[in-house]
Amino acid sequence: MYLLNAIIKNMAFTYPIVDIHTHIYPPTYLTLLRSRKTVPYLLDLPNQAAAPRLIILPSDDDASISPESRGRPIDNAYSSISEKLRFMDMHDIHTSIISLANPWLDFLSPEEGAVWARIINDELDVICMQNENRLYAFATLPLSASPPIIVDEINRLEEIPHIKGIILGTSGLGSGLDDPELNPIWTALEGTQTLIFLHPHYGLPSDVYGPRAGEYGHVLPLALGFPMETTIAFTRMWLSGVFDRFPRLKILIAHAGGTIPYLTGRIESCVQHERHLAAHEHGARGPKRDLRTVLRENVWLDAVVYSESSVKAAVELVGSERVLFGTDHPFFPPLDEREEEWSSVRTNVVAVGKNGARNMIMGWNAVKLLDLELAPR
Amino acid sequence: MYLLNAIIKNMAFTYPIVDIHTHIYPPTYLTLLRSRKTVPYLLDLPNQAAAPRLIILPSDDDASISPESRGRPIDNAYSSISEKLRFMDMHDIHTSIISLANPWLDFLSPEEGAVWARIINDELDVICMQNENRLYAFATLPLSASPPIIVDEINRLEEIPHIKGIILGTSGLGSGLDDPELNPIWTALEGTQTLIFLHPHYGLPSDVYGPRAGEYGHVLPLALGFPMETTIAFTRMWLSGVFDRFPRLKILIAHAGGTIPYLTGRIESCVQHERHLAAHEHGARGPKRDLRTVLRENVWLDAVVYSESSVKAAVELVGSERVLFGTDHPFFPPLDEREEEWSSVRTNVVAVGKNGARNMIMGWNAVKLLDLELAPR
Repeated sequence: MYLLNAIIKNMAFTYPIVDIHTHIYPPTYLTLLRSRKTVPYLLDLPNQAAAPRLIILPSDDDASISPESRGRPIDNAYSSISEKLRFMDMHDIHTSIISLANPWLDFLSPEEGAVWARIINDELDVICMQNENRLYAFATLPLSASPPIIVDEINRLEEIPHIKGIILGTSGLGSGLDDPELNPIWTALEGTQTLIFLHPHYGLPSDVYGPRAGEYGHVLPLALGFPMETTIAFTRMWLSGVFDRFPRLKILIAHAGGTIPYLTGRIESCVQHERHLAAHEHGARGPKRDLRTVLRENVWLDAVVYSESSVKAAVELVGSERVLFGTDHPFFPPLDEREEEWSSVRTNVVAVGKNGARNMIMGWNAVKLLDLELAPR
Repeated sequence: MYLLNAIIKNMAFTYPIVDIHTHIYPPTYLTLLRSRKTVPYLLDLPNQAAAPRLIILPSDDDASISPESRGRPIDNAYSSISEKLRFMDMHDIHTSIISLANPWLDFLSPEEGAVWARIINDELDVICMQNENRLYAFATLPLSASPPIIVDEINRLEEIPHIKGIILGTSGLGSGLDDPELNPIWTALEGTQTLIFLHPHYGLPSDVYGPRAGEYGHVLPLALGFPMETTIAFTRMWLSGVFDRFPRLKILIAHAGGTIPYLTGRIESCVQHERHLAAHEHGARGPKRDLRTVLRENVWLDAVVYSESSVKAAVELVGSERVLFGTDHPFFPPLDEREEEWSSVRTNVVAVGKNGARNMIMGWNAVKLLDLELAPR
């Protein structure tokens, strides 16, 4: 028994750690942002040693705020691959699935969007090729372009070896993921079995945080707005019957599903008591495929939720084979630059807990889901 | 051992079931709403056998919608005490803590608010007195009045025997629960050790649900808007230092805390990484009393969350002695009027689970927290 435990323990050490949620602004994307004068844009500071500022919120596009404190700083960690690898080594992460950080390409004209999606997705593939086995990528769709152009890009991604899915914001073509105009895009994503990484960006209208929100920095929009945006987007998608029409869609939801695992029962109950929704077989209301079935058959969740009880609730809803470790790098770095290890990462590692599913959540689920090839360690 | 189990099992049957979350519109409140012509108001239908409609949302105050489908029906279950008792008997509920349903008294002028709070709170006491041991009440504050008037009412409630706390919406004096103008009110609530029952009403701005929200009836605002509103309100209250200044405040949060238990880790992490918040001892940021401490020392949660995994997550955060069964009656009745038992109640009973804390959550926690006297069954 002692020997067996030793073997198991040793095996555990050879399991890979995979980071499913880690962002990058590749160099050409920063060039694009630098060329712009309207939100979103990149603002270089007079002091060239200082990190440029990304002006991403309309409220940050305010000349009365000094450039040094406008928007947010975009240091090396956002675009440098060597920084990404250093971060991965520091935290014993073997493989990362990098994705473009928001605001993606949503702000471009249809023509620009189509061109830039190809440029960025090809660039991501090259970056991964140069770091074989250590980096894979989620691609970005040209959502401002017409559906046929978007479908073309989805089909083109099939041929790009290091692309393992696409990252998708909550606005879809502009009016949310319950938009029937998205049908050809869902058809293409389902047909190619492309994993959708659903990620927030737009948050909630700022007045919900009240007149004193500024005193709390970005806490309320980041801590609450993002997961609430994600929850609303996915619930609309489910309610509109997307998973009835496309029962083989695969969707990975950021930040452990926002708040979906905690609100599943309430959503189900509200649907069951809503006279406005049509009843179908057995008197059930709402979408034909019920929420728990969709959560167990179509949904994966990252484990970026910073709390063990929440990881447990997520696992209970979708199953332990559907929860995947992530870091949200390069966001939430240590405030004290002398700290090497990131406490945001440590918190999420601890949150996965010590249960039997630990190795699955930390990496094995990602290896299986994305069919990753891993180099010997 | 068999005997001991039998005794324990028998004891369990004598534990009371207490409903901490159950609403009423007492007759005088309906009279008040009937007298009004602007939102909120009560609209009687030409067919007097039909339930009058409560027009509570500005969007429902639309003469182009036929009166029969405008707003929501307010049948007997909203105001009849005999209906409340019949519902309690049906579900084996021994004691209910009744509270005025939203929109409470927020919409009244300061003078009206002060008068109506006294009328309604006295009326609630009379209703409870007529149903000794079976009914207690949470009072309503005249929040449109000036703070000294509100404080007077809090102090007056001390002398009203069946009042066990107050129900409070998320808007406070109009700009949220992080408003420093609330300090005298927190002082009075803490000094009298009055339990605050925090309950949503205003939801989120309707545009967050997108242009197709109407197709889902009221599902999105009810299932998502309410818990998100609650989460934002409580987080603002904590961030503004209310629990530092008033460390003995007692707050019961509706719908199992909205989404607070699932987002606790994310809120903590965002606070720890927010340079804008002052760091204090040990480099911790944000309020001096950290979120988990406040959850374990100041917060109680109802168990109205319709899902066992969510009750577990709530228990893990606040402790099993701080989660209390509720029904949200008379909301979410069976759509099929032939059904006697309410499936919304059954779902919440099942969600409490069969663990050792079941009797505590189903009633004993409420008996201890509110110092209830229970009649022999």
